[in-house]
Amino acid sequence: MEKIKIGILGYGNIGRGVECAVKQNPDMELAAVFTRRDPSKVKPLTEGVKVLSISELDNKQDIDVLILCSGSATDLPVQTPKYAKMYNVIDTFDNHHDIPKHFDNVDAAAKAGGNVAAISIGWDPGLFSLNRALATVSLPNGENYTFWGRGVSQGHSNAIRNIEGVQDARQYTVPVDSAVEAVRSGSQPQLTTRQKHTRECYVVAAEGADKEKIREAIVTMPDYFADYDTTVEFITQEELDKKHKGLPHGGSVIRSGKTGWNEENNEVIEFKLGLDSNPEFTSSVIIAYARAVYRLAKEGACGCKTIFDISLTYCCAMSPEEMRKNLL
Amino acid sequence: MEKIKIGILGYGNIGRGVECAVKQNPDMELAAVFTRRDPSKVKPLTEGVKVLSISELDNKQDIDVLILCSGSATDLPVQTPKYAKMYNVIDTFDNHHDIPKHFDNVDAAAKAGGNVAAISIGWDPGLFSLNRALATVSLPNGENYTFWGRGVSQGHSNAIRNIEGVQDARQYTVPVDSAVEAVRSGSQPQLTTRQKHTRECYVVAAEGADKEKIREAIVTMPDYFADYDTTVEFITQEELDKKHKGLPHGGSVIRSGKTGWNEENNEVIEFKLGLDSNPEFTSSVIIAYARAVYRLAKEGACGCKTIFDISLTYCCAMSPEEMRKNLL
Repeated sequence: MEKIKIGILGYGNIGRGVECAVKQNPDMELAAVFTRRDPSKVKPLTEGVKVLSISELDNKQDIDVLILCSGSATDLPVQTPKYAKMYNVIDTFDNHHDIPKHFDNVDAAAKAGGNVAAISIGWDPGLFSLNRALATVSLPNGENYTFWGRGVSQGHSNAIRNIEGVQDARQYTVPVDSAVEAVRSGSQPQLTTRQKHTRECYVVAAEGADKEKIREAIVTMPDYFADYDTTVEFITQEELDKKHKGLPHGGSVIRSGKTGWNEENNEVIEFKLGLDSNPEFTSSVIIAYARAVYRLAKEGACGCKTIFDISLTYCCAMSPEEMRKNLL
Repeated sequence: MEKIKIGILGYGNIGRGVECAVKQNPDMELAAVFTRRDPSKVKPLTEGVKVLSISELDNKQDIDVLILCSGSATDLPVQTPKYAKMYNVIDTFDNHHDIPKHFDNVDAAAKAGGNVAAISIGWDPGLFSLNRALATVSLPNGENYTFWGRGVSQGHSNAIRNIEGVQDARQYTVPVDSAVEAVRSGSQPQLTTRQKHTRECYVVAAEGADKEKIREAIVTMPDYFADYDTTVEFITQEELDKKHKGLPHGGSVIRSGKTGWNEENNEVIEFKLGLDSNPEFTSSVIIAYARAVYRLAKEGACGCKTIFDISLTYCCAMSPEEMRKNLL
């Protein structure tokens, strides 16, 4: 069997997760890791895999799909269009507000290069988006709700770490149980930001730092914390390393809607994730869609796709016959 | 706007549900209802809609998609291939074991007629199948579990009604909470049929009937009840009509799987439905896929499709741009 040759750009949590996911999929192989760091300093888990400088990507490499494992803030808006001109690519672009612009840029580049690109793959955006769409088409008269957590938000953890006097921090986003239950009941409640989630912060203060000042800086921080009920607990570095080292996450997409001639019946759809490792699960989804990108490109497709455009037949290692027999 | 013209064949619970769903989708209209009964005896809810004899379908009617709302046991295996030769069609064929054969028959017929057919659309098969596939591709090293209920099984209710001395009956399929929790924990338990579901039967005995004999006939019935912990409660017709008239259903598809270099992390995916009306929700899903069938046919596609082959872009009333903006 000819294996699908995967390239990874960026060897952080997602890059390592993609590497683990490739190992679980016998129709794939990791061709190379590309990095902005000194390649000799990057040590992949896969025996014998090449580590190359990012600049090597400018000379067409023998890879079927390039997985862009960089950040959405500044890297992906540049990298995804750039590499879509030369390679079939996938990214995890998660800045929901900028997706339309990113799509247009990547679509133009992929079409210019005759390649297939899939953007915003993962779980949100990703599987959550797919289930928001599935629920929306299944219940046209209804309301969507998305809850995140309980899980570590790396953006919020970083925001705390940037406060003066903070040595280390971990922030958990926590859905409010009563809000989730109200949504599940089909009552379609109006919920404010504060009613949907709380934020739990575990902070290691630097020696001599003013803890009250740190707490105040956190809970009043606009966008990140001010609109939430936020709790701050100061702990030691040892405790943080021991209890808060993982990157668990998850959440639910819930839609409730009405059916019937007089809309007399309530129907509730829920899609839920409980993840020990956010980056590993994200990567596992990416790899399924890398298979789809590869197959679409083989068929002669080009341009940018989202999870809405790609049917599961393209993602699945099974044949359509096996899928019908085993999964339908 | 040109509306999608829907035809309904068979005006039972699903036929009426499709009619309600058409009403909720402004890009659709109900063109006609076709029936095996005397058309003058069938009274649709939609004002002014034509009711025609099934035989009229043999003269090509002006409908874009024909929804086959008949039973899987004997009707659909004949009707779906027959009408796929003349019309774009959708069915809810739910005999999982016979799906591969049904697919081949319908595919040949739809290709012969240059039409698009979608089979086994609804929630199981249907949305549950889609989520089984989504979870399988997202976590290749894992295990799928499907739980049904709490909900009314019409097949099991009918099986009880056929017992001598039974006047009426309702059967609920109930998932065993502890089994669902064990699956959600990620422990990937081995579960027998008996461990996954129980069966609750509400039975109205005919006057003078031997209740003990009825109970024995139920709990020992092979396939239907013998492999389950089954409870039988005798009630009056009034109570049955009052408390058990609805057709609620639902259930969960859960997959748990391992990620990580040494498969050290557990990830759990759950898709869950809680339905007041099983037939209305099924019909609401059908109508979303009728839109997809219509669009696929417009593009020149033909042949048989399943829910695995159809991307959500085809199902959604929104444009791809709106989907990316609002749902991704």
